[in-house]
Parts: sequence; structure tokens; C-alpha cells
Amino acid sequence: MPHARSAPVTVREVGLRDGLQILPRVLPTAHKLEWIRLAHAAGLREIEVGSFVPAKLMPQLADTAELVAFANTLPGLQASVLVPNVKGAERAIEAGAHAMLLPLSASHAHSLANMKRTPDEVVADVRRIVDLRDAKGADCRIEIGISTAFGCTIQGRVEPAEVLRLVRAVRDAGVDRIGLADTVGYADPLQVQQLFASCLDAVGDTLSCAHFHDTRGLGVANVFAAWQAGMRRFDACTGGIGGCPHAPGASGNVATEDVAYLFASMGIPTGLDFAALLALRAQVAQWLEGEPLHGAIWRAGLPKTLVPA
Amino acid sequence: MPHARSAPVTVREVGLRDGLQILPRVLPTAHKLEWIRLAHAAGLREIEVGSFVPAKLMPQLADTAELVAFANTLPGLQASVLVPNVKGAERAIEAGAHAMLLPLSASHAHSLANMKRTPDEVVADVRRIVDLRDAKGADCRIEIGISTAFGCTIQGRVEPAEVLRLVRAVRDAGVDRIGLADTVGYADPLQVQQLFASCLDAVGDTLSCAHFHDTRGLGVANVFAAWQAGMRRFDACTGGIGGCPHAPGASGNVATEDVAYLFASMGIPTGLDFAALLALRAQVAQWLEGEPLHGAIWRAGLPKTLVPA
Repeated sequence: MPHARSAPVTVREVGLRDGLQILPRVLPTAHKLEWIRLAHAAGLREIEVGSFVPAKLMPQLADTAELVAFANTLPGLQASVLVPNVKGAERAIEAGAHAMLLPLSASHAHSLANMKRTPDEVVADVRRIVDLRDAKGADCRIEIGISTAFGCTIQGRVEPAEVLRLVRAVRDAGVDRIGLADTVGYADPLQVQQLFASCLDAVGDTLSCAHFHDTRGLGVANVFAAWQAGMRRFDACTGGIGGCPHAPGASGNVATEDVAYLFASMGIPTGLDFAALLALRAQVAQWLEGEPLHGAIWRAGLPKTLVPA
Repeated sequence: MPHARSAPVTVREVGLRDGLQILPRVLPTAHKLEWIRLAHAAGLREIEVGSFVPAKLMPQLADTAELVAFANTLPGLQASVLVPNVKGAERAIEAGAHAMLLPLSASHAHSLANMKRTPDEVVADVRRIVDLRDAKGADCRIEIGISTAFGCTIQGRVEPAEVLRLVRAVRDAGVDRIGLADTVGYADPLQVQQLFASCLDAVGDTLSCAHFHDTRGLGVANVFAAWQAGMRRFDACTGGIGGCPHAPGASGNVATEDVAYLFASMGIPTGLDFAALLALRAQVAQWLEGEPLHGAIWRAGLPKTLVPA
């Protein structure tokens, strides 16, 4: 295990990207700016603010450059953006994002359906993007999110050996960080421990993000299992928004406030202000009235043993 | 760890007792009989069918003797009943229950409020009940559920040393089984691992049940953590019914179908038929129309990688 049990945990808020991209409505930019402001005030220091995909394809995220610019005014905040290809990477660098997240699907079938390229073609693009970033001398971290790492709704089983192969390939391509994502909510805690452990063995601390959906109720258990394997950085969405187009009614990413509660309950520092996270959730619930929100801790509140004096 | 990782897991359905006791409505006996029949058909072999408390205090559970009699007609089914005192124990033995569950609160304040006795007075009653059972030569297993083992809504913190003291005291009193219960949903996975591990060290396999509420979203993670500590038997409620009077809107016990899914996803045998569990949940939802049900897996269904061929 590369980190002490008491080492702090980082939660990255991805609701503005992974949460909003699947909703039919477009949240006004003013609300997104307020979301970023409230998230920063709650102690979040990494926020995925949007994606540089064509606005035609995803009008929900068309204001990403404006959000990056605002995020860059907040002290200590690192804004990341999802980019699907070289063109998106150029826009992320232009916008001044701290980090760009490139998805790479471990499922061949999902990669073709979602990225229109094989995983190895995506790895080749990753190399081009690293070269581009280095040629420009840009200060933009490159992070790979290995999606469908625990299974795929199209292909079914995804072999751990294939995940490991891709993790090594992108490490060799020179990326800064790699994460494993359970894109469709197939992961179980034992699988999580095993896959994170073997990837940590292979690439060490370069593996530095765990991304879970709570589609089948195992999201928080999987966060715990990844933490046991040594992970100290987790993606989450305020209110567990997002869902999955392949699982109607299912919840989305693990809820930011639930992940914050998990670690608070275990005495692990996150730097997050619980009341402020719940206030953000309430605000998001109001903006997204009619959309299902998820998560658990907001209903019952903190235990008496955890309420600050 | 006393058990192999591949050892089968037993799930005890407690919805008819822990679930129904908190609901204002009285479920008709015919529905309860059908619940037991469907649960047995789904592979459940331990069911807590009710409680021998005065019908005046808990009219929801007044038909417990009739449910025990029916459960005893189903092959391989072990019916347990909750009993609060010596009088209840006598009724459990008369009814022919396979097991009686005696609650013992590790929180002094909760014990006084809920049982009108101190924990040590309850331990003295446990001794009387063991003597009574032995004197009658009755074939009724005596199991202690240590409630509020992870914290208490009245008292707040509950010391692990006090839980350990009580676990040893009831072991010395000659009970057959002991379980730890997170009655109010305060437990976190690290605390669960530590307390189960230290109690297993103290009394070995006599510690044989873990009972979690999902009040704050950590229920399934706590089941996983207890399993990691070596526990192989878990309480759960169909549809996660039950709630907590101290946490309005919060869910109750971990959902039977979610616990079944957790273990199925990890490849651990439970003997449970998933489709039959979901059918039972749908039936319970219909009987309890208007009551909030909980749990996650019923919404999204099994992953493609787990659906039986």
C-alpha cells in the first residue's frame, strides 16, 4: 500500500461534467459558476468543470471555457476538463485548464461505439496529445480515465489483463495520471481491490484516481475497497446525479457528500465542510428540480458522534 | 479469519420483524405467510418472523406464533423470533421457534430507554433464559443481538471495550450465538472491521451475525467490511424497509436483495435466487404501498456479466 491509512483523501467533483452531460436540460452558466463557487467554498480543490466536445453534440457543456476561466480565479482550485481527442486537447490548453482528462475504454466494443476508435488508436492519440502539450510547454496535466475497466454493458466482461496492458501503455506514453472508472456500475469490492492492487503494482502512484458509479448500490463499498487498495483520490458527483443511459432510474456517480461522509466517519481527512456540501446539494436539487438526485447521508444527517461541537 | 473467502454466506431475512415493527400499518397474517413462503422459495433458510412482545405494545407482530407454526412446515427453514425478556422466551419455546434473539444494548442509556433495564440486568435475564431453555430441554437456539454496538442516538459514543465486555459476558452465560448490530446506522467500515475482529478474537465463532442499517449509505460497505473481518452471516430486510424513528426518511436495514447482489458479484455463494428475491420485493412493495422502500439493485438489475445463461 503506497499511502498511510491516515493520509488525506482528495475528492474531485465531477457533477458539472459526468453529472450534467446525461441530463436533457442545459443548466445556465450562471448556475454552473455558482456551483463551482460553492464547491470551492466547501473545500473541494479539484473540479471537472466540463468537456471540450463539439457544442452541437453536447450543448449542456458548451460553456466549458468560461467555467475554466472562472475556476482559475479561485485560490488553490484545479479545474479539469474532459477531452475526447487532439482537437479537444488543444482547446483545453488554450482555455488554461489545470488538467485534461482523456477517456480510454478498456472495452473494445465500448471504445468503438463511444470513441469511434479502437483502444490502441486512442493510445496513439494520447501520445500525440502528450507531444502537443510538451511542444507548447503548456502547464496542463494529462490524466487518462480507463473507462469500463470493470465490465461493459455492450461487451460484458472486460479482462483485467487488458486493463493492465492499457494502463502500462498510457504510462509509457508519458501521461501524468491514470484512473480506473466503473463507467456502468459493474464493479464489486473484491474486483476493485484486485484490479487497483495489480495496476498499482505496475505503475505505482501514476494510478491516482478511482471513479465509481452507484448504479447497483455498491458505489460506496467500492470506494472503501479502492481506498483499502491504496487509492487516495476519488471522483464523485454532488447529489449522485448522472445516471446511466443503459440503466434507467439508476443513480449516477457516487455522491460527493456520501464519499465525504464515508471518509469523515473513518477519521480520514478530506478538507471538506460537510454542511457546505449539503447546502450545495440542496442548491443543485433546486436547480435540477424534477431530476432524480441520489445519495443517502443528506436524508439522515451526521451521527451525533460526528456533529462538530 | 475463521472462514475461507469462498465459504458460503447466510442471509437472514428480518423484514417481518425489524422491518414491520416500525411501520404504522399492520400487515395481514395472510400476507406475512406468503412473504415467508416466497422468501423460502427464494432460498432463504433463516427468517426472523416476529417478536414475542405484548400485542398491546406491538400489534404489528401479534401473529408471531402462527408464523412460527407455518415456518416450521417449510423444509430446512429456521424461524427465529425476537424476545425481550423471560416471558417472551417462554412463548418462543412454546411456539417451537428454532431460535430466539435477545437484544442487549451496549449503550447504557439506550438499554434503560428501550429495555427498562441496565445492560448487566439484561445479562442476568439472559442467564435465566439459558437456564429455562436447558431446564425444559427445549431445542431453541439462544442468540444475543448486541444493539447500538457502534454508537447510540441517545448516548452518542459506545466504547468498544464495553461491547467486548458484554460479548464475553453473554458467551459466559452460555448463549449459542452472538451478533453485533448497528441499530442506528452509525457504523463505518473501519470501525466494523476493528470491532468484529476484536470480538472474534475474544469469542470465536460464537460471534456469528452482523446486522446493519443503511441509514447513512454505508450499509453495504459495512457488510463488506464485516465479511472481510470473517463474518459469514448477515441480517437484511427485503426492500430495505424499517427506517429509524430517530432519522426520518432514512432507510432501514440493508436490503436483502442488495446483500445478495454484493455476494453474488464477488462470487460468494448464498443459495439465493435473485429473480425470486426481486419478485418478493415487488410483492412486498405492493402490500406496503405508500411506504418508502429502499435498496438499489432492483432499479438497474443484474449486470450482463452476472445474468444467468
